[in-house]
Amino acid sequence: MHDPVALDRSFLAPDAFAAELRRIGADRYHSLHRFHRRLHDGQCTRGEVQAWALNRYYYQSMIPIKDATVLTRMIEPAQRREWRKRIEDHDGLREGDGGIERWLRLTDSLGLHRDDVVSARFILPATRFAVEAYVEFCRSKTLLEAVASSLTELFSPAIISERVSGMLAHYDFVSRDTLAYFTARPDQAKRDSDFALDFVTREARTPDQQHAVMDALRFKCDVLWLQLDGLWTAYVEGAPPPGAWQPTGNQTQAA
Amino acid sequence: MHDPVALDRSFLAPDAFAAELRRIGADRYHSLHRFHRRLHDGQCTRGEVQAWALNRYYYQSMIPIKDATVLTRMIEPAQRREWRKRIEDHDGLREGDGGIERWLRLTDSLGLHRDDVVSARFILPATRFAVEAYVEFCRSKTLLEAVASSLTELFSPAIISERVSGMLAHYDFVSRDTLAYFTARPDQAKRDSDFALDFVTREARTPDQQHAVMDALRFKCDVLWLQLDGLWTAYVEGAPPPGAWQPTGNQTQAA
Repeated sequence: MHDPVALDRSFLAPDAFAAELRRIGADRYHSLHRFHRRLHDGQCTRGEVQAWALNRYYYQSMIPIKDATVLTRMIEPAQRREWRKRIEDHDGLREGDGGIERWLRLTDSLGLHRDDVVSARFILPATRFAVEAYVEFCRSKTLLEAVASSLTELFSPAIISERVSGMLAHYDFVSRDTLAYFTARPDQAKRDSDFALDFVTREARTPDQQHAVMDALRFKCDVLWLQLDGLWTAYVEGAPPPGAWQPTGNQTQAA
Repeated sequence: MHDPVALDRSFLAPDAFAAELRRIGADRYHSLHRFHRRLHDGQCTRGEVQAWALNRYYYQSMIPIKDATVLTRMIEPAQRREWRKRIEDHDGLREGDGGIERWLRLTDSLGLHRDDVVSARFILPATRFAVEAYVEFCRSKTLLEAVASSLTELFSPAIISERVSGMLAHYDFVSRDTLAYFTARPDQAKRDSDFALDFVTREARTPDQQHAVMDALRFKCDVLWLQLDGLWTAYVEGAPPPGAWQPTGNQTQAA
């Protein structure tokens, strides 16, 4: 890690720029978080997996809203067509389709009530504030920074394959079917991050713009990390904020 | 704690309404957080006190901006005059005056560089996202809810007196002078929370509005709580998010 103030502000060639972005991921992506190690290694209780899926649903559910915000700021139809795929991936082309629906199949299989999940009324403040910060970032920053904040998808295919194999091996309450959300994601993430990396490489024309891209990626890593910190404090360490949801066997319940 | 959905939605008389608000504070105000117990009981390291003051500065510094947001929504000059006092308290009437300046005297005395504090570049994401959520709440919700979210000041005089006596007794690196910020706060908070309680009692004319007030107060308790959760995870438990500031003796330094 390095002091952002002391950074060399020379313009980076595309390869060096991409390498710098990957280095940010290597230092900060939430694959490094102890909650993910615990989740993937089979050390989570069922309640912890429920809490993860319940909270993460809110993040998933806000992604198309975030992406619609980005869409409002793209002036070229070709760009909007490309970006629109992200919304289609999450919302589906028809009823019962799409990533959000597939995430609900996961929460269903974990015994969570759909209304409790969809209403988001039991999520942690850490989740809510982090996700709201992400949506607001994409609304208020430059288009370049909004696109850059999606670059965490550069790193998601690796964590997803580790997650699926780890969770299938360790938890008898998950199956390949309940993890269907993740089946489609690596290809989608590859396509999306190819677009985003190409976009930021082309559109960041000054050292300051390149650093704004890096800062946007760091910001997004913070958004993901804080969500796992919240889960760890509340459900692994057992120090939930007042009023937080508590897992109780098969059902969700207000604490 | 109770399920918000199951709440009785009858209209509460002023005394019952005030009692309900105080009960929310008794259940959720950050005086209950283990970080505050640790801070006030003298168990914090100097680095933990530095981290607290550094992060809390960002909250302090955004309060006048939050209050200016509320001011933009008050149509009566008499209300604005009253609310304006909050901004005057924090920003002062002249150079070197005001709560923000007094908070900087605290961070000075703890060996933190002003530029590191004022720039907020070393604060935790938990702090940043919680504070941003607060400002955004006051910008986007109703005036009633914005005013209601300030009602945590009903509970602050008690925690401040406990803080000052506890910190003076336990830390040789703080003095009554460095804690000058807190000297003025209880009277200001009493005046402000009297106004806010009177305002919400008068303006909440339906059960739904009364419950919106209660929800706003719960939200604000979440904002305060998450900031302490962040400090605990990063500096007490020693699991900081990547890139977080680390205390190193007398100086601040990028991690």
